Amino acid sequence: MAKAKIGVLGASGYTGSECVRLLLRHPNVEIALLTADRRAGQAMREVFPQFSPFDLPKLVSLETLDWANCGLDLVFAALPHATTQKVIRGIFADNARIKVVDLSADFRLADTAAYARWYGHEHLAPELQKEAVYGLVEVHRERIRGARLVANPGCYTSCSELPLIPLIAAKAIDLDEIVVDAKSGMTGAGRAAKEAMLFSEVSEGFNAYGVGHHRHMAELDQEFSLAAGRDVIVTFTPHLVPMNRGILATIYVRGISGKSPEDLHAILLKRYASEPFVHVLPFGELPQTRHVRGSNMTFIGVAKDRIAGRAIIGSALDNLVKGASGQAVQNMNLVLGYPEAMGLEQVALFP
Amino acid sequence: MAKAKIGVLGASGYTGSECVRLLLRHPNVEIALLTADRRAGQAMREVFPQFSPFDLPKLVSLETLDWANCGLDLVFAALPHATTQKVIRGIFADNARIKVVDLSADFRLADTAAYARWYGHEHLAPELQKEAVYGLVEVHRERIRGARLVANPGCYTSCSELPLIPLIAAKAIDLDEIVVDAKSGMTGAGRAAKEAMLFSEVSEGFNAYGVGHHRHMAELDQEFSLAAGRDVIVTFTPHLVPMNRGILATIYVRGISGKSPEDLHAILLKRYASEPFVHVLPFGELPQTRHVRGSNMTFIGVAKDRIAGRAIIGSALDNLVKGASGQAVQNMNLVLGYPEAMGLEQVALFP
Amino acid sequence: MAKAKIGVLGASGYTGSECVRLLLRHPNVEIALLTADRRAGQAMREVFPQFSPFDLPKLVSLETLDWANCGLDLVFAALPHATTQKVIRGIFADNARIKVVDLSADFRLADTAAYARWYGHEHLAPELQKEAVYGLVEVHRERIRGARLVANPGCYTSCSELPLIPLIAAKAIDLDEIVVDAKSGMTGAGRAAKEAMLFSEVSEGFNAYGVGHHRHMAELDQEFSLAAGRDVIVTFTPHLVPMNRGILATIYVRGISGKSPEDLHAILLKRYASEPFVHVLPFGELPQTRHVRGSNMTFIGVAKDRIAGRAIIGSALDNLVKGASGQAVQNMNLVLGYPEAMGLEQVALFP
Amino acid sequence: MAKAKIGVLGASGYTGSECVRLLLRHPNVEIALLTADRRAGQAMREVFPQFSPFDLPKLVSLETLDWANCGLDLVFAALPHATTQKVIRGIFADNARIKVVDLSADFRLADTAAYARWYGHEHLAPELQKEAVYGLVEVHRERIRGARLVANPGCYTSCSELPLIPLIAAKAIDLDEIVVDAKSGMTGAGRAAKEAMLFSEVSEGFNAYGVGHHRHMAELDQEFSLAAGRDVIVTFTPHLVPMNRGILATIYVRGISGKSPEDLHAILLKRYASEPFVHVLPFGELPQTRHVRGSNMTFIGVAKDRIAGRAIIGSALDNLVKGASGQAVQNMNLVLGYPEAMGLEQVALFP
Repeated sequence: MAKAKIGVLGASGYTGSECVRLLLRHPNVEIALLTADRRAGQAMREVFPQFSPFDLPKLVSLETLDWANCGLDLVFAALPHATTQKVIRGIFADNARIKVVDLSADFRLADTAAYARWYGHEHLAPELQKEAVYGLVEVHRERIRGARLVANPGCYTSCSELPLIPLIAAKAIDLDEIVVDAKSGMTGAGRAAKEAMLFSEVSEGFNAYGVGHHRHMAELDQEFSLAAGRDVIVTFTPHLVPMNRGILATIYVRGISGKSPEDLHAILLKRYASEPFVHVLPFGELPQTRHVRGSNMTFIGVAKDRIAGRAIIGSALDNLVKGASGQAVQNMNLVLGYPEAMGLEQVALFP
Repeated sequence: MAKAKIGVLGASGYTGSECVRLLLRHPNVEIALLTADRRAGQAMREVFPQFSPFDLPKLVSLETLDWANCGLDLVFAALPHATTQKVIRGIFADNARIKVVDLSADFRLADTAAYARWYGHEHLAPELQKEAVYGLVEVHRERIRGARLVANPGCYTSCSELPLIPLIAAKAIDLDEIVVDAKSGMTGAGRAAKEAMLFSEVSEGFNAYGVGHHRHMAELDQEFSLAAGRDVIVTFTPHLVPMNRGILATIYVRGISGKSPEDLHAILLKRYASEPFVHVLPFGELPQTRHVRGSNMTFIGVAKDRIAGRAIIGSALDNLVKGASGQAVQNMNLVLGYPEAMGLEQVALFP
Repeated sequence: MAKAKIGVLGASGYTGSECVRLLLRHPNVEIALLTADRRAGQAMREVFPQFSPFDLPKLVSLETLDWANCGLDLVFAALPHATTQKVIRGIFADNARIKVVDLSADFRLADTAAYARWYGHEHLAPELQKEAVYGLVEVHRERIRGARLVANPGCYTSCSELPLIPLIAAKAIDLDEIVVDAKSGMTGAGRAAKEAMLFSEVSEGFNAYGVGHHRHMAELDQEFSLAAGRDVIVTFTPHLVPMNRGILATIYVRGISGKSPEDLHAILLKRYASEPFVHVLPFGELPQTRHVRGSNMTFIGVAKDRIAGRAIIGSALDNLVKGASGQAVQNMNLVLGYPEAMGLEQVALFP
Repeated sequence: MAKAKIGVLGASGYTGSECVRLLLRHPNVEIALLTADRRAGQAMREVFPQFSPFDLPKLVSLETLDWANCGLDLVFAALPHATTQKVIRGIFADNARIKVVDLSADFRLADTAAYARWYGHEHLAPELQKEAVYGLVEVHRERIRGARLVANPGCYTSCSELPLIPLIAAKAIDLDEIVVDAKSGMTGAGRAAKEAMLFSEVSEGFNAYGVGHHRHMAELDQEFSLAAGRDVIVTFTPHLVPMNRGILATIYVRGISGKSPEDLHAILLKRYASEPFVHVLPFGELPQTRHVRGSNMTFIGVAKDRIAGRAIIGSALDNLVKGASGQAVQNMNLVLGYPEAMGLEQVALFP
């Protein structure tokens, strides 16, 4: 079987390099294109020395590409938010048969008015938004299989949606009292050089940010409301942890219709019994980010609060894998008709 | 003025060594006694090399002490929980005039039945419990001044109580919907050699623990109920952050009686306007643990949630200073009649 | 082809769990036995939760095993130093056809007198020492293929020997002026609960240890002397870095016989041109541990010192992979006749 | 006694903020001026929130200042290298009586030709260079007392010079075989936003940099040659440690004239017996950076190598304190006639 030819746009960032890491070990693909505008002309090893031992295409600039004749089957777009809508519109204009898995936020919101509200500018490719499928595989798997454009979800949102959507859909929890207290490693902030992300600013400290207003809320609203059949908004506070990889969401819910914490656990256990990348821990155990590091797994746990009827749910994933590039490869596998777990089997790296 | 003679019981642990660090720079005290049973006979520099340049008493065993003739004015008891009740009873039996600031949990719960329930054994000095004062200075200052035995609060509890007690006392928040999501650095776990606390287990990861049952809840119940004039229990989840020092509590509350998040902020700002060690940030800013590291400060911030009526409160302190030994020295200053901030003026160490 | 049946003795430690991580993705093996005396009866997931999603044998005690009928093809012995000699003698006594890759130090020194001197007790299986092969694959590959007992090298030693042995063998450097300044992540210290290895002791600090006397010196002496054809001893100082994984050796050498730093680089480049797990960087670049994290690669670099004739060599590997369990799997592949890189293809995890 | 009025130029960087931290607790000074060109108009708390509780002057731009009438007694110049020569020349032109402690490298090299060679441009204030005194207090104390312009040494250089200068001056070690392998925390790289200094790039890894060419070599050459009375150049390799503060230099030397490692230790012990900020550990113990964190101490240790005649020396200081701002305050104390240790008494913060 011929290997699919794959491009990674934005290969000098962390989600781009993580795509490369995963694709290098995927048996059915060939990395045929790597772009990085500011590093165009350089070897990938100059940007990410861990790839020194591998043969990889040189980094090129997006602008130099001839999409009609590139011969690519699929591209991962790991470009900054807000530039991607134009880029993908351009690609499809030149080559309607290519597939795109977009890791930016540009196509995640089905409602372009919501997009404009959260992102501060009009959507630049509203006609493409209609065909974009929200790429949370465990929820939208069937629609993803036939998609040309998959909008890979945000890292905080995957981590929060995987435990909450089944509980919302089952009408098992009070929709007006959900609190999501989320904690992320620093790679979630990307590779752009910012003072606040320097080692010396971040190490040996902890803080919340984006309090009361974080763009991932828009995705949560969309997916939770879809699952509930009514508008749902939740309290969501992100925090930064002095570690590279991992998100832990600690979620506070109240069971309704007599649902105990044990019932909530049972719903999740049943829902994810045959999912390869969502693992529900025994009742009472909450997950640790370190145990999913580098893998495409999500670990979910449910425990009883001491206040009757309330449960505390923990959800952990690696923000660069299941929270970004691993999920993107999972989406690619669906789009290209490969086994869903292909190339994603690596075990977590702990310690 | 003669310097007070001070002893530190349990000087080989972190709260003990932190007492020594602070006392070395306190102008009105002399460190006259250091105990550490397993390290008895050693110099303090063998246990904590940072003290190499200083003249300090040799470590001795508790059992060898003659309390009646020790000449001490005050001792800090930084001993393991559950052994302290007996030790302090013994001290007072031999020397009724000595003062004690206890950093363990042994005298924090006024209700000895609650103590037995949370700690799994009967209180061993119930007659002393009656005179023990809960040493959260900003709340119980006047009672502390006259106390012989001060029960220094837990680190999580100081961090949670300082922002919440004024709001509870003002009847400004819904008492049945308080969620405290707390995150602590690793020194909170102490210096005992445990597999789960090894660098390789902790680094580059994040997790909750003690979910649904943590002993600091008992203190929260006591102080919140006292402030409210009725029973209050809150949801409380502690987490471990891969850093040495610092606690951040992210607290979710709902204003009542028309109290907006801005009103809650105003209550705290007014309440703490003249406190030397509690600083309320401008509305909308939440604190970072790194900005109080090594200092006796608590930083508190209040922000608006996007759900109307709800506020998100952040509270940060250094668990070894305001959360333990700094507060203990503050208590000592009150007990001995010194200016409250004496020896506690060091500025936070950042970066 | 039937999969080889593999046992891991000491699966509750870091090198044991790292064997499990690698073997889980090796296509030609089945993990058939896991031992851990103190955790016997538990599931592997209770000891290392990252393995929760996988089917693995329950942990058993070494003492309960019937080696004659265990059906294993090969065992990895990841047991504490000094207990392994007896254990392996017992295994071979019951089952002469099993193969053993030993990750301890017990069979690394061919000279049992040197063993006694460095380890403080007589060798307990001197007759087996004669057949043990020192498992630094790139140096002893052919002898390893036929071995029944392979002594996997120490992490510091692999990191130092890979760059130095070719230079010594080529008579290119002064043998009396070699300084190896080595820095290791904390997993090198193992999982035993020791105060000095606690997060709070290790984080945010750096130090040398074992100065002037570290047991890995004995291995260096053996292999360097073997390569030189005369006695060679080097200055070696290990340090601890507050990170989990990785060793960097910074090595100071002086070229002889007119050999410039560029010449030394050329020797290494040529020597390792076709090795899958040793990668020599372009002249002037030194390696970083983060770029080999989680992979079986060694990165080596050579740069010019400003003092004429002197070169500074950097060598980096992941102490748990190429420094321990990855090399052990590489040895297993040789012993079992598999392709040498099988199961070891994972790309480094950075960031 | 009136307090001296002090300015800090470049208060938005780490060495500037560290000056502020120390000066806030110095009894004889008043912080009267803070500059930060890009943050001019902001409060110090917006740039460094740890100063929120303190009254500090607003940040102003350098260009707006009237040096003739500023009323300052002394300024700390914590400005970027290469801009400082002009700034200080301008200050002295307007106000010849002000004192300056310069934390940049601009006045450290007495030889302006060496300056031009190492820094790539002509010295811009050669007439001032003549009066500048190299501010390594323990070596040049008497000349500093009368100085108007003190060039505060580099962090690596203080750490290397304090142990080596006495040994060189005593003709106790071979001058042609000195290897300094130095490791620094990340604050040494400053606060400028650079990709290579991001948390995610730095955490969980270790590497050398500036191999064979680092500007601090120029200072080492100057001071070692001065001490030796002949040209001395040493091998020097800096490394980056994933921690905020601290430098450890591991130094390899060979005793001459029959000097044993014990003799070298005795020389240092005697030399620093009455120095308040240099502490020599017992023979055989090497220092750890964590034990000097946040303090102005240097810890030095000497151990025996296993190669006869060779010694391994460790030297540790906090790069922001004794390596920069603490030494600067020590210089200020000398220049202003205050007790040398005033304001510098804080004990190291460990853990």
